[in-house]
Amino acid sequence: MTAQDKPLFLRALAGEDTPYAPVWFMRQAGRFLPEYRALKERHSFWALARTPELAAEVTMQPVRRLGVDAAILFQDIMTPLPPMGIDIDFTPGPVIADPIRSMAQVDALRVPEADEIAPFVGEAIRLIRRECPVPLIGFGGAPLTLATYLVEGKGAKDYSELRVFLRTQPEAAHALLDKLTEVSIRYLRAQVEAGAQAIQLFDSWAGLHDAATWSTFAAPYNQRVLDAITVPRIYLAVGASHLLPMFGNVRCEAFSVDWRTPLQQVRTFAGTRALQGNLDPAVLCAPFSIVEPEVRRVLADGRGGAHVFNLGHGMLPSADPDTVRRVVELVHGTPRYADR
Amino acid sequence: MTAQDKPLFLRALAGEDTPYAPVWFMRQAGRFLPEYRALKERHSFWALARTPELAAEVTMQPVRRLGVDAAILFQDIMTPLPPMGIDIDFTPGPVIADPIRSMAQVDALRVPEADEIAPFVGEAIRLIRRECPVPLIGFGGAPLTLATYLVEGKGAKDYSELRVFLRTQPEAAHALLDKLTEVSIRYLRAQVEAGAQAIQLFDSWAGLHDAATWSTFAAPYNQRVLDAITVPRIYLAVGASHLLPMFGNVRCEAFSVDWRTPLQQVRTFAGTRALQGNLDPAVLCAPFSIVEPEVRRVLADGRGGAHVFNLGHGMLPSADPDTVRRVVELVHGTPRYADR
Repeated sequence: MTAQDKPLFLRALAGEDTPYAPVWFMRQAGRFLPEYRALKERHSFWALARTPELAAEVTMQPVRRLGVDAAILFQDIMTPLPPMGIDIDFTPGPVIADPIRSMAQVDALRVPEADEIAPFVGEAIRLIRRECPVPLIGFGGAPLTLATYLVEGKGAKDYSELRVFLRTQPEAAHALLDKLTEVSIRYLRAQVEAGAQAIQLFDSWAGLHDAATWSTFAAPYNQRVLDAITVPRIYLAVGASHLLPMFGNVRCEAFSVDWRTPLQQVRTFAGTRALQGNLDPAVLCAPFSIVEPEVRRVLADGRGGAHVFNLGHGMLPSADPDTVRRVVELVHGTPRYADR
Repeated sequence: MTAQDKPLFLRALAGEDTPYAPVWFMRQAGRFLPEYRALKERHSFWALARTPELAAEVTMQPVRRLGVDAAILFQDIMTPLPPMGIDIDFTPGPVIADPIRSMAQVDALRVPEADEIAPFVGEAIRLIRRECPVPLIGFGGAPLTLATYLVEGKGAKDYSELRVFLRTQPEAAHALLDKLTEVSIRYLRAQVEAGAQAIQLFDSWAGLHDAATWSTFAAPYNQRVLDAITVPRIYLAVGASHLLPMFGNVRCEAFSVDWRTPLQQVRTFAGTRALQGNLDPAVLCAPFSIVEPEVRRVLADGRGGAHVFNLGHGMLPSADPDTVRRVVELVHGTPRYADR
């Protein structure tokens, strides 16, 4: 592959200043697309996620309609957990039948072999790679973010059960994080072996914690996962601008930035890493006259280093697909360095 | 009143370096106290909040048991909204029967006179002042935080309905915020007239927004409310470390800081204002051997200016009252400047 052949998205992750920013959208495979909703009428979420042909089809839908520069596997961050012996229901958020609050419960968790975890994911990735014209991103939840759901048991405002667990049972917490780290490594390596060309690690609840807590219970486990991955690695921490001073030590190729934190502020700590983000998803529900200046503002804010245009959080179901397609065209039509 | 007579809490809010930090706890009047739970078995939340004698009793419970340096009115931030014509249920979080999503709905909202809003609050304040040995804090929700619930209609993770409303109907949003500001001013002035000796403004959802959105839809309305208050004003923005650079312009006497943001980082932007905070409430569920170093760390972090010791968010129902009482003793027994 010559440099010219290398897809724009992978060039940006390699830290190259691309002529225009590659673009994809978190949750681009999902409810805002009518073709997804049509499939969802006939299949449950889990049937879509666990049937390789259906997961591949959902993954490809936004690639076909929007002309994005990367695909992201259609899957849930909880996918690798049931084989550990965890009973998860979706209502629609994850609900854990028996929230983990003791060392005995942690001890009872299995660490399944790689091929037991989610064989349907590898199969879906192989199917996608046969037809997908752009790089495919695999993903997983960061260990502490997975633990957040397992300990809390359900969605919550401040996940105080998890925070109390970390303070009162640090030993059990570390044992749980250790198991989740090992499972995550096996799961993500299997994605890479099947053909994932980049991996995004979702530390969706990093922002709950002060710097000392994140450094103790998140950072070392994140790094073990990231270090085990042999393709470009994107790290996303949500609501975590108070943690930025520590991001310089994270070994990864890119930071995905939420909609609240200015890209230029992250650039200070990111060094030569690429930045990804960070349009507020709510903007995509507005008329294009409101969308356009916001997109241009994000593009301008992304200068000074490699930039992958994306949202600052997941696509909202109420986003207008035509607006999203026009955003892709706008990003592709905006030279990053008009003055060169 | 001589300087010696002025309560420690009010001296700290005036920016004085007190010999030790005054201390109170957000949600100190509430579920973690057995005497509150006993009352709650016989009365609904709204009965407790709307019956002056009961609201006064609940406000006084932590003052008697804990020896804190300030009382905070037992009430809900939604209290001033029903007289505007808004139907609110609690399940237990607020649920709005008819979420506000249009200018017509905003137009239909009443702006009640001061004495119509919540006369039971003024009466409770007068009862508390008769017996309370420490200053009484009144409070209200910031206009955008109140609007967050009114537009979303219920608790949510990212309050995307509110964020879409701001992007798509900015005119209706400003009209709603204007009415909420006027009601808040009347409500808080009535609290001051009845005897509240300080006011805390809860901008609980400030952290949802990027700097431009907060500057447009939160800051000017917050300031109108704060400017109308003639007693010391405490401003609390949660999860808002990305907004810190703008806090220098907020006219108030103190910033209350959440548990994620180091006090020293806020001090940089706070100038001579007092800081309040910011122990992680989850710590109070741990054994005292874990609590003590965390309390000492917060006290050390609070040096360099006036400091009111508090939590970084509301007390958890699972906090141990004995631990909380020992924290008060520890704070009172820790000279701020041992080297003087």
